[in-house]
Amino acid sequence: MIDKDFRKIYAHHKSIIEKRIISLVDVDAPTSVYEPIRYVLGSGGKRIRAMLVLLSCEAVGGKGRKALDAAVAIEILHNFTLVHDDVMDHADLRRGRPTVHRKWNSHIAILAGDELIAQAYRSLLKTQSLHMQEILHVFTDAFIQVCEGQGLDKEFEHRTDVLLDDYLLMIAKKTGRVIAAACEIGGLIGEGTPRQRVALRKFGEHLGKAFQIQDDLLDIAGNEGEFGKTIGGDLVEGKKTYVFLTALERTTGKDRRLLQSLVLRNGITKAQIARAKEIYKRAGVLDAARDEIFRNTLLAQRGLSSFPISSAREMLHWLAHQLVGRNS
Amino acid sequence: MIDKDFRKIYAHHKSIIEKRIISLVDVDAPTSVYEPIRYVLGSGGKRIRAMLVLLSCEAVGGKGRKALDAAVAIEILHNFTLVHDDVMDHADLRRGRPTVHRKWNSHIAILAGDELIAQAYRSLLKTQSLHMQEILHVFTDAFIQVCEGQGLDKEFEHRTDVLLDDYLLMIAKKTGRVIAAACEIGGLIGEGTPRQRVALRKFGEHLGKAFQIQDDLLDIAGNEGEFGKTIGGDLVEGKKTYVFLTALERTTGKDRRLLQSLVLRNGITKAQIARAKEIYKRAGVLDAARDEIFRNTLLAQRGLSSFPISSAREMLHWLAHQLVGRNS
Repeated sequence: MIDKDFRKIYAHHKSIIEKRIISLVDVDAPTSVYEPIRYVLGSGGKRIRAMLVLLSCEAVGGKGRKALDAAVAIEILHNFTLVHDDVMDHADLRRGRPTVHRKWNSHIAILAGDELIAQAYRSLLKTQSLHMQEILHVFTDAFIQVCEGQGLDKEFEHRTDVLLDDYLLMIAKKTGRVIAAACEIGGLIGEGTPRQRVALRKFGEHLGKAFQIQDDLLDIAGNEGEFGKTIGGDLVEGKKTYVFLTALERTTGKDRRLLQSLVLRNGITKAQIARAKEIYKRAGVLDAARDEIFRNTLLAQRGLSSFPISSAREMLHWLAHQLVGRNS
Repeated sequence: MIDKDFRKIYAHHKSIIEKRIISLVDVDAPTSVYEPIRYVLGSGGKRIRAMLVLLSCEAVGGKGRKALDAAVAIEILHNFTLVHDDVMDHADLRRGRPTVHRKWNSHIAILAGDELIAQAYRSLLKTQSLHMQEILHVFTDAFIQVCEGQGLDKEFEHRTDVLLDDYLLMIAKKTGRVIAAACEIGGLIGEGTPRQRVALRKFGEHLGKAFQIQDDLLDIAGNEGEFGKTIGGDLVEGKKTYVFLTALERTTGKDRRLLQSLVLRNGITKAQIARAKEIYKRAGVLDAARDEIFRNTLLAQRGLSSFPISSAREMLHWLAHQLVGRNS
């Protein structure tokens, strides 16, 4: 298949996912709960996690439609994290629109997030599978991990001793686990072998890691116009990202002091961004990040090499490349 | 059995529940997640909902210990609602201690509540039962209803047209559904007949209703010292309770105008409490509330009359009386 075909299938799958998501919350009252939920779920997004459930199911020989309710469940779980995280991060915008707590208030956002979790489980429970118990375990574990990941992320904001390994654990929990669960649950519904399930989980873990590092890299090396936000925003906000922590490990002297000032002062000024980028380049951090993304993408795909050749497997490869090659 | 025996069994069951709850969250990191959770789960409470799961299971002939993980799940779900509701209600105290968002902050409280939901499902999934799918449905439905109930409750704060029936729907969702789910899930785990399951669910619904009306009644007719809060607090806060809405339906002229001023001004002054209580008495509202509590307690118990005689059934009766006869 060529890129155009993949895009067509993606668009087709996505429209089915969208329809199912919207039908789930086609409820009128109470307005204060369902209006914000429809707002969140109707605001688009790539639906990557739902797509991974469907494709993983198909990649082990299952029917994609059997995994649709689980795909929707994973997507809704992801959206819950966005709503609550945005409150905790005081974020104003999400997908170009005001966040729920900005459009309404934080109490509405708390309750909408809670209800999203309930709806995620409700959708998941519609799944017909002999492996329901395991599916629910994987889903609930991802939910626990994503809460723990958010907890660590918030703790890191105030900690001055965060190391690269701490960061990797945090993103594995906050980003990686739900993506891995999407793939594993797809494999379970598709009746994959235990070995295939593990391969799919690993695929998700590596993909999640590559995805997050790419996100960190884009913040400093992205194209300002395409990326949709200001270059160096993470530095200004004092975020301890993959690129930042790698740089911290590799620098000494004046360079290190500048980076450390970010930790101590919870961010650097906009005027210092160019200098930080210089330091990153000199320390080879941007290349190191690119290598790590490449390595994880490769590891992700390698696990699927024993899968029977199928358009779903091809599409998982394509999707991995898309995510990692993205500019925004 | 006599009261003393019931109390002994209650205390015994409760200690087992407490142990299981604490063992569930015996996790160190991230501290920002597990410390507040241990604080919430370690702050006591009567564990009524967990008790109802165990007793309902035993009342249909099941072993209580088979229902322990589900009992803990229901109790943790209840505690999640307390943590998030306290944020939304700006509550300072819970069980005599600062609420999570007061002791830490609202972000910690949001995340702790989220993690409590995850832990509730985790505990529920440990249950061994042929009816897992149904148990999960009942649990998730209760979770959805409790969110909807909270949404309605918050909407009522600003609405001036709330009727008694609206209120009854709200408390059925916010209070009744989780209690009913506790009883029904206990019945499912204990392998009760479909008829017994329905009877247990109804028992919970009526009990929940009686419990909530009792709560509303205590606010105005309770003994200040025993009740632990100021008499008439609901009136001052402008809460549209069972007693208030019944009074509004039964009064005219000056009395009605005073009550309506509560709706329009979102509360009355402390000085007006005595007058409102006078109006309540004159309109027979306090007696009407007592009748409704009595009627619901009776309805709750009647459903269990076809159950085989057992100490669990006796204890469910006793528990209903305890809850409804309580002064705090």
